[in-house]
Amino acid sequence: MNNFTFHNPTKLLFGKGQIANLGAELPAGARILLTSGGGSIKANGVYDQVIAQLQGRTFFELSGIEANPRYETLMRGVALVREHQLDFLLAVGGGSVIDGTKFIAAAVPFTGGDPWRILSDGASVERALPLASVLTLPAAGSEANGAAVISRDDQKLAFWTTHVYPVFSVLDPETTFSLPPRQIANGVIDTFVHVMEQYMTYPVQGLLQDRFAESILQTLVEIGPKLLAGGRDYDLHANFMWCACMALQGPVGAGVPADWSSHCIGHELTALHGVDHARTLAVVLPSLLDVKRETKGEKLVQWAERLWGIREGTPGQRIDAALARLRAFFEQMGAPTRLSGHGIPASTADVVAQRLAARGVNTIGERGDITPSVVRRILARAA
Amino acid sequence: MNNFTFHNPTKLLFGKGQIANLGAELPAGARILLTSGGGSIKANGVYDQVIAQLQGRTFFELSGIEANPRYETLMRGVALVREHQLDFLLAVGGGSVIDGTKFIAAAVPFTGGDPWRILSDGASVERALPLASVLTLPAAGSEANGAAVISRDDQKLAFWTTHVYPVFSVLDPETTFSLPPRQIANGVIDTFVHVMEQYMTYPVQGLLQDRFAESILQTLVEIGPKLLAGGRDYDLHANFMWCACMALQGPVGAGVPADWSSHCIGHELTALHGVDHARTLAVVLPSLLDVKRETKGEKLVQWAERLWGIREGTPGQRIDAALARLRAFFEQMGAPTRLSGHGIPASTADVVAQRLAARGVNTIGERGDITPSVVRRILARAA
Repeated sequence: MNNFTFHNPTKLLFGKGQIANLGAELPAGARILLTSGGGSIKANGVYDQVIAQLQGRTFFELSGIEANPRYETLMRGVALVREHQLDFLLAVGGGSVIDGTKFIAAAVPFTGGDPWRILSDGASVERALPLASVLTLPAAGSEANGAAVISRDDQKLAFWTTHVYPVFSVLDPETTFSLPPRQIANGVIDTFVHVMEQYMTYPVQGLLQDRFAESILQTLVEIGPKLLAGGRDYDLHANFMWCACMALQGPVGAGVPADWSSHCIGHELTALHGVDHARTLAVVLPSLLDVKRETKGEKLVQWAERLWGIREGTPGQRIDAALARLRAFFEQMGAPTRLSGHGIPASTADVVAQRLAARGVNTIGERGDITPSVVRRILARAA
Repeated sequence: MNNFTFHNPTKLLFGKGQIANLGAELPAGARILLTSGGGSIKANGVYDQVIAQLQGRTFFELSGIEANPRYETLMRGVALVREHQLDFLLAVGGGSVIDGTKFIAAAVPFTGGDPWRILSDGASVERALPLASVLTLPAAGSEANGAAVISRDDQKLAFWTTHVYPVFSVLDPETTFSLPPRQIANGVIDTFVHVMEQYMTYPVQGLLQDRFAESILQTLVEIGPKLLAGGRDYDLHANFMWCACMALQGPVGAGVPADWSSHCIGHELTALHGVDHARTLAVVLPSLLDVKRETKGEKLVQWAERLWGIREGTPGQRIDAALARLRAFFEQMGAPTRLSGHGIPASTADVVAQRLAARGVNTIGERGDITPSVVRRILARAA
């Protein structure tokens, strides 16, 4: 097991009706920027519940944060904070709204020039405004971690800092009843891949971490199709929301290697082709595991047995069978697992490889051996 | 799934050599009370590592905190803090030292009379001195939670407050290499029972919580006998330490019922007969599950299958087989599962039941239905 630091100070208020406790958690006298997305929270009643908790408080609003939050939109939030001397950010929405709010939190006090440098140059974040969230879309895990992904022009980049962990997050599974099936499917896939990226590397005797990861994967495979079938089953939605949160809250990745290359490659497909984030992952992950089956072999065989119950055949046969099960699961969740399923030409493999090479992204993967040419092979095999 | 709040702000520094980062975590200018137990940390070198990190700092020492930390000893710590105006507590040891230090932290600013009232009357803890820990004995999980168990005369009582979560804890598995086999066995059993007490109740569709619990149990069953066999296998000790910590760090118990009656009853056996804490649990738990097999039946059958691989027979037969496996595991870890194994007479069942009744402990268990008379049956069946 590798050494690690585990520190997640975010307070989580989980369950039905928890938005009613929002006001009590907000600091007295806070001057608040309320951030949100495209308006679904107004349709499903969450907005009204939140506003009721803000009665008597000073707050301004930034709505319209996009599904892939854009730098320009967020800089309008930075301007609002400065203009009105706001000191607390409250994100109401899914991962994109929370991610975007983290960028605002870090950008306001940033003294190193254009805050985009936090993404483009990895410029250090020394402090940030405090923020909190009301989660309405389980997927990103952003409600309980320090990560954010921001887009500008055709670039989609990530940053991470301890300074942007939410002070608290409200997770009411009932807010997810009104999600369209496609967003639920995307959330299940995104969560699944977050876990896989912390699990599917090489063994380091992280016995408990492996089992925690498998626990989330098993639960997602169990509940994913039931969620897609619709209905307002509270416990199904609660398990979905809790799986998405725990996937990135810490215990899965503590002390084990990680391979975030599915996200890295997937971001390129979103930036170039506008494909939903999760659906890029459903294309990339199966192909990546196929191409990297040698270096990930031990964990692939373990995963085949523990998640899919595959115990017969040679290691190669088991891996083939498990990858077929993985593709079938993603496709059951409505996500194509081939580029062609999105109408993306095979030539995109070259384009993505060139873009990563141009940015100096040459050594992703848990062994640093996923070079641009390996990325090209992964996407070619996903054609 | 039940509603819950999840908030664990303790920073964990996990891994070999992490004591070298202790100094950097301590607040500048802190006036420290260093607390410890019986001296094993001097024999195994941990004390010297800690003292090296305290060079140039102001600190006083309270050593000799007992295996079941005693009120009188801890009040000497309270006096030291007050006399020397100390403002930070650093516990170096196992759960007893950390628990005792939590009591000191809460007792110093306590204004409600004798601090024992925190335990005897459940008097509210409004604030506490900040504390940190260097863990040397995995078992109690005290390094990452707000609970403590304190003894006075023949009473052994617990308290819990958010104010005594350690600011940080250092978990170096190498500090556990020198533990005697009996302490390792006790730690494995204690951890196992902590998980069972949050798991073995009735189903509330906490699908992920159940699997997280089973993950820890499976890992303990895998590593327990190997740990007892001795040697300095780092990864075995690391998994042990991480299991013990995660068992009570939060995710196992979030949103599900709990039944802490094994601990409640076990504390009486320690108070009356001086039996090691964990070894009381090895007596109580199997018998408690046997007596409560009706109300815990659904979870017992799930546990029989997922932990012990028992899939054949009637529910009752599966439960019998699983309880036999449980007893065999505890006994393999060197712990008798009968009162007679400790030379305790069957009549103790009446004594414990009377003591609990006298304290008004009438409704323990996840359904509040473990009355003193049920406790009597549990201990009678464990004779």
